[in-house]
Amino acid sequence: MRRSFIQCALAVSLLAAAGAGAEGRWGTGALMVVIERESGSVLVVDAAQNHRVLGRVEGLGVLHHASVSFSRDARYAYVISRDGLLSKVDLLTLTLAGQAKVGESAVGLAVTQDGRHVAVSNYKPGSIVIVAADSMSIVKTIEADQSKTVGLVDAPGNRLIVSLMDANQIWIIDANSPDFPVIGKYLNVGEKPYDALLTPDGRYYIAGFFHSPWMALLDLWNPGQPRKIAIPAPKESQGGMPVLKIPHLEGWISAGDVLFAPVIGGAGLAVIDVFTWKTKQVIPLLAHPIFAMAQPDLRRIWVNFVMGDHHGAVQVVDTQSRKVVKTLNPANKIFHMQFTPKGEAVYLSSYGDDKVLVYDPNTLNLVTSFPAQKPSGIFCSSRAHVFGL
Amino acid sequence: MRRSFIQCALAVSLLAAAGAGAEGRWGTGALMVVIERESGSVLVVDAAQNHRVLGRVEGLGVLHHASVSFSRDARYAYVISRDGLLSKVDLLTLTLAGQAKVGESAVGLAVTQDGRHVAVSNYKPGSIVIVAADSMSIVKTIEADQSKTVGLVDAPGNRLIVSLMDANQIWIIDANSPDFPVIGKYLNVGEKPYDALLTPDGRYYIAGFFHSPWMALLDLWNPGQPRKIAIPAPKESQGGMPVLKIPHLEGWISAGDVLFAPVIGGAGLAVIDVFTWKTKQVIPLLAHPIFAMAQPDLRRIWVNFVMGDHHGAVQVVDTQSRKVVKTLNPANKIFHMQFTPKGEAVYLSSYGDDKVLVYDPNTLNLVTSFPAQKPSGIFCSSRAHVFGL
Repeated sequence: MRRSFIQCALAVSLLAAAGAGAEGRWGTGALMVVIERESGSVLVVDAAQNHRVLGRVEGLGVLHHASVSFSRDARYAYVISRDGLLSKVDLLTLTLAGQAKVGESAVGLAVTQDGRHVAVSNYKPGSIVIVAADSMSIVKTIEADQSKTVGLVDAPGNRLIVSLMDANQIWIIDANSPDFPVIGKYLNVGEKPYDALLTPDGRYYIAGFFHSPWMALLDLWNPGQPRKIAIPAPKESQGGMPVLKIPHLEGWISAGDVLFAPVIGGAGLAVIDVFTWKTKQVIPLLAHPIFAMAQPDLRRIWVNFVMGDHHGAVQVVDTQSRKVVKTLNPANKIFHMQFTPKGEAVYLSSYGDDKVLVYDPNTLNLVTSFPAQKPSGIFCSSRAHVFGL
Repeated sequence: MRRSFIQCALAVSLLAAAGAGAEGRWGTGALMVVIERESGSVLVVDAAQNHRVLGRVEGLGVLHHASVSFSRDARYAYVISRDGLLSKVDLLTLTLAGQAKVGESAVGLAVTQDGRHVAVSNYKPGSIVIVAADSMSIVKTIEADQSKTVGLVDAPGNRLIVSLMDANQIWIIDANSPDFPVIGKYLNVGEKPYDALLTPDGRYYIAGFFHSPWMALLDLWNPGQPRKIAIPAPKESQGGMPVLKIPHLEGWISAGDVLFAPVIGGAGLAVIDVFTWKTKQVIPLLAHPIFAMAQPDLRRIWVNFVMGDHHGAVQVVDTQSRKVVKTLNPANKIFHMQFTPKGEAVYLSSYGDDKVLVYDPNTLNLVTSFPAQKPSGIFCSSRAHVFGL
């Protein structure tokens, strides 16, 4: 009780210091935007200034499953709320620079390669909504055959790629034209796509399905009907149906001739052969993983679990020995992890204990922590520079 | 004559507009720092604000072969001059935030992973000088056995790696300790190292030599005497001595199971097998390449030539077909090229015509150009987030 009071007082004083006149006196290259899930706010932290809390921006809607993308100059964070409110947060002034209500229920967003537009994928109504990045006005709504849309990403050539959950399709949208035409439609790719990822080079789009025992791989260099590839799973369960409790796809990690990915429907990290897309090994973990995030140097992968007995654990896997080298228990309900751009620190959000912990990945020691209100997702502004984020 | 007057007047008005009171009102994620080689100045341009010239910072020393690295938050550009002057340029206020004279003759620099120090490799006196990033005071000088030092990079684990040109060694320095101890010394790696690169994951350090017919590959995950690997050259000349007119090593490009690199001693781009390190194909080019730079989406590689008949040409190579798809002739003496972080634009410096040209890599069309005083190197602030840059 006393401790949380002190933490709270500290937070208020930090925010007050940041609020008055201190605007704009920081580079925007390594800012951490922390979603405060229940209060509709984000906390902005400068990883390059000793993890200093710069301030809080409020009024962003219902932030369950919220996501963030950044403008090209990393000045603005675009936040999409679960209830369809798109906010433009100015990371220099820590104010709202604009908002647009784009739907009733939304799940993801993407900034186009040219930086001129922000696209949102809506569950309800089923659509992709295109918003002008400067004015925040809606410039186009693309109806999605009454399907929920998911797995929206920006891709090279100023394209957007999206999956249609109820229509079992993948679409390619051309953001060069003011009409935003759908220039590619792939039908019957699999049953009920639920999420997708784009490889960091922007070449491969990979979608996962609730009801099909494969993943769909679209090669954007050679577009044609997507290939069916094996889901990351132990050999004995390959070909079976995926189960619920599905890990996020974002954390697929390319390291030389293998990919690492959370096993779907099991307690492990899959090692996938990039040439055959088959799972060649499963590294055992404590429980079903949610996120698997690689250090920028690819030496280690950090995995969290969120639910069940191990909600407070983080396991660290060495990519060379392919073994768990450390199990940390930082705090309750570790919801998300985010590395600084060069990985000298990693942020862990503890939803259960209302704080963010900062670890040094080189030593695996705790560096610092600071209070946050039920933190969930953490997004570093350097994501501005990566396709698909 | 009239045209260049108009360009000059335009430049002055742009700079005046940027100078007064406009400080700090931009994100620092996608700034382009253009070296003006003969005037000891840099031009700062915001690629995300329609390629707007923000201003010029002067007094940076002799900028022949100058190089730039960035602070973690991309707020500061550290510029090392040929005559050993290290400058800290504030990209928000466009002023000099500090300077240190680190030697008589310097060639490269690196910011440590933790952002606390800037290291400079000196030719004369032969040393590595460590400067505190905040105060810009020299905290340590590491004598290099009276050898010129080259190929200095920052690496994961807060390490610095450097080659000793006259002592034929590669050193690993630990930047975690205030003593900056040399924790690894590799002797007799090859004769007269002249440059080196670090792969973007921070794992492999590759040095080139003036007088040995191989390159040295140091695997930082498994440190041991560096392996000798083949230089990128046509088969018939492999095993021969490298020639002068050596391309920069920075432009090695990893794309799936091959690397692309400028041929050493020939008019071509080498395609190297990443498993054997042998050159499996040479793509013919107009002349000896200087820089080869990949678009962030790895679809195409842009090559320049600088000297001889083709100093004004840029060839664009498709990485999939491995053919030249376009030869551009933008202007005289194209010295350097730099992509925006997601590659929606590429900047070309024309030393010969005192301007910078901006092309759209998707259409290969000229977007805009602006005057600059004998521009050479161009450095994007997103390099803050990449090991070895």
